[in-house]
Amino acid sequence: MGKGSDARGDQPGPGRRAFLRGAGLGALGLAAGVRAEVRPQGSRLPGAPFRNYGQPAEAESRVIRWVTDNPDAPTIGVSWTPLHELVGTLTPNGLHYERHHNGVPAIDPAAHHLVVHGRDASATRWTVARLLRYPMVSRQLFIECGGNSNSGWTQEPPQAPVGWLHGLVSCSEWTGVPLRLLLEEAGVARRPGWLIAEGADAWRLHMSIPLEKAFDDCFIALYQNGERLRPENGYPMRLIVPGWEGVLHVKWLSRLEVSDVPAMARNETSRYTELMPDGRARQFTFFMEAKSLITQPAMGDQLAPDDYLEIAGLAWSGRGRITGVDISLDGGAHWHPAELQGPVTPTCFTRFRLPWRWDGKRAVLQSRARDETGYVQPARDVLLEARGRWGYFHYNAIVSWSIDEDGFISHVYA
Amino acid sequence: MGKGSDARGDQPGPGRRAFLRGAGLGALGLAAGVRAEVRPQGSRLPGAPFRNYGQPAEAESRVIRWVTDNPDAPTIGVSWTPLHELVGTLTPNGLHYERHHNGVPAIDPAAHHLVVHGRDASATRWTVARLLRYPMVSRQLFIECGGNSNSGWTQEPPQAPVGWLHGLVSCSEWTGVPLRLLLEEAGVARRPGWLIAEGADAWRLHMSIPLEKAFDDCFIALYQNGERLRPENGYPMRLIVPGWEGVLHVKWLSRLEVSDVPAMARNETSRYTELMPDGRARQFTFFMEAKSLITQPAMGDQLAPDDYLEIAGLAWSGRGRITGVDISLDGGAHWHPAELQGPVTPTCFTRFRLPWRWDGKRAVLQSRARDETGYVQPARDVLLEARGRWGYFHYNAIVSWSIDEDGFISHVYA
Repeated sequence: MGKGSDARGDQPGPGRRAFLRGAGLGALGLAAGVRAEVRPQGSRLPGAPFRNYGQPAEAESRVIRWVTDNPDAPTIGVSWTPLHELVGTLTPNGLHYERHHNGVPAIDPAAHHLVVHGRDASATRWTVARLLRYPMVSRQLFIECGGNSNSGWTQEPPQAPVGWLHGLVSCSEWTGVPLRLLLEEAGVARRPGWLIAEGADAWRLHMSIPLEKAFDDCFIALYQNGERLRPENGYPMRLIVPGWEGVLHVKWLSRLEVSDVPAMARNETSRYTELMPDGRARQFTFFMEAKSLITQPAMGDQLAPDDYLEIAGLAWSGRGRITGVDISLDGGAHWHPAELQGPVTPTCFTRFRLPWRWDGKRAVLQSRARDETGYVQPARDVLLEARGRWGYFHYNAIVSWSIDEDGFISHVYA
Repeated sequence: MGKGSDARGDQPGPGRRAFLRGAGLGALGLAAGVRAEVRPQGSRLPGAPFRNYGQPAEAESRVIRWVTDNPDAPTIGVSWTPLHELVGTLTPNGLHYERHHNGVPAIDPAAHHLVVHGRDASATRWTVARLLRYPMVSRQLFIECGGNSNSGWTQEPPQAPVGWLHGLVSCSEWTGVPLRLLLEEAGVARRPGWLIAEGADAWRLHMSIPLEKAFDDCFIALYQNGERLRPENGYPMRLIVPGWEGVLHVKWLSRLEVSDVPAMARNETSRYTELMPDGRARQFTFFMEAKSLITQPAMGDQLAPDDYLEIAGLAWSGRGRITGVDISLDGGAHWHPAELQGPVTPTCFTRFRLPWRWDGKRAVLQSRARDETGYVQPARDVLLEARGRWGYFHYNAIVSWSIDEDGFISHVYA
């Protein structure tokens, strides 16, 4: 009965994790829909009543963050955004990635405050209620952990869904008070120095940020995607450091100290630094450089010959706007420009896509992003040549998905 | 001890529903922060462990949709987005407004499908799994109920928070399949006609849309703010009709019938039409015209003399981009241009703001939006002159907040 039907035509896939089809269908007389009888669907019985606060559909209960915590100390670890289940440029608040060093504190917003002090600052504090009255800016920004994608340093390519390899990055609209206003109010001069940010979690995370960046575009986020921050994202307030590594975006922000020197804290010395081939380590590598991922089709999907696909994914750069993404179907020998979904804004997820028909032969899919500084995402061997075998942070090499003759997709180093 | 402290300085307000202050603080030597002792804050005990799917902070439990349902049939009614508690341009999925005609159906995505049929269409159906493989677009768009703000037709201005007067509008990133692709695949010619959309709820909502609009920019949304639609927003699929009234965005979409004539269904004849002064009714008034609201300060807030404020709010237009918002402090006698938060995109919430110092005298705050077509949001008397006293839908007049000598803000018709 079906026109252009195929064996898998009406099988519900595992979410959208199967294969993509569509582009060019009409032109070749192939059809993705099938002939239909027209019957009404659905129940004649009244549905569920209203809810004050909505939740995802039960059928989507697999779409969750994947938690990898320390078995001996379950408040320490990360949780990964399921990038392989999401489509769009935003991450819902419930699925934003997390990195906690000692769990999520329960903060009473009526008791919490933010203090600016040190060097030339006139020690000043703001309650949450007070900050909520200040002028605010809104920006759609990605936040990426400096350790995201670091399984790329392993000898063998790990076989796991995209989100469990690269999901320590998420993108939200953050709204809050420009840090510049608070620094000016505390009398801090705009001259060289550092700002040491401290969180109110039990770990007392503290991180050092150049004062110039603090004056430039940092802000104190109070809202995420329209609503107040959630506990695991820093409620009641979080520092936003656009384009820089996630650990600087201090959650549960409580103190900002002006200093001539950085704190040299654990997370800017023994961690979040990168051992280089010559045995020295890079430090204060703040920017998250341009990166991209094909999220569909990807690891774990299976294609069928003559499938028409839309290759699609995400690109981002801590340096500003993505200016282009190229797609290779042959492991980097040839490149094809992808379409970018507009509006393209700085330091925000940018979706890209390219129609394609798989011919049933082996292929290796890659995406390569470039940003407005002219920087181009490096091949893995180029990154390893520059950074050595013992890196851990700031891995942004091109990702490769291999398609075998049976259409199975696996992760390869190519 | 406080510098520039005032009586209410450190009192936590009811959320951010108090007053705003900040802009120009430094210039006048007033300070909003107070001198601080520097003490660490927070617990030394480990915090809460990870969650697979996050929820709002308990201290924000007041930030919910307000449900106004039919007491005799609680599956029929609306729920309002708490615009007075949100800051930014996006609405979290859990707080998107709802209008249900017979509750929220529980749909098995593996059993649901979409059919296109009628006139020149080759009856064609798509499973959800199939549509998930199609090319997709992402757009940040508001959806507004045609009945939003209709308490503006009452003789006396209702005294209620902004969201309970105007919160049948929300804004999300919607991602889905261009409807044009499905129509073309079913062989539908791009010539005059209608597309009648039906939902799979027990009410079987059906609505008529000109075929030209369907080919132009409508799409079948599968994702909202990155994740799959939630049940109350149409899971597993919803029609998106950018810039047009909410009732056309048919949820639980199951059938699209091509026709030479509209359905003349209940919701396009006896409802969602507007009785005009001459006794005739307007029908098929699809576009949501330009509108704006000051969300802070607003109804229910109290100001203090010499408060420095940021007047801020939202503007949107179903015709395209907002090109400007003017603010009046004196009930429309004089107007001052507000700053727009970029990037300004078509048929999307646009935030505006203007710094202001209240001098302790009576004032009437108004905002007036204009869009790229040159349309200007009308004063209430102008709207009533054109539309009469018996309207119900498409109320978009300028909203006025009156500030008395005590700083109390109330809703007035001015």
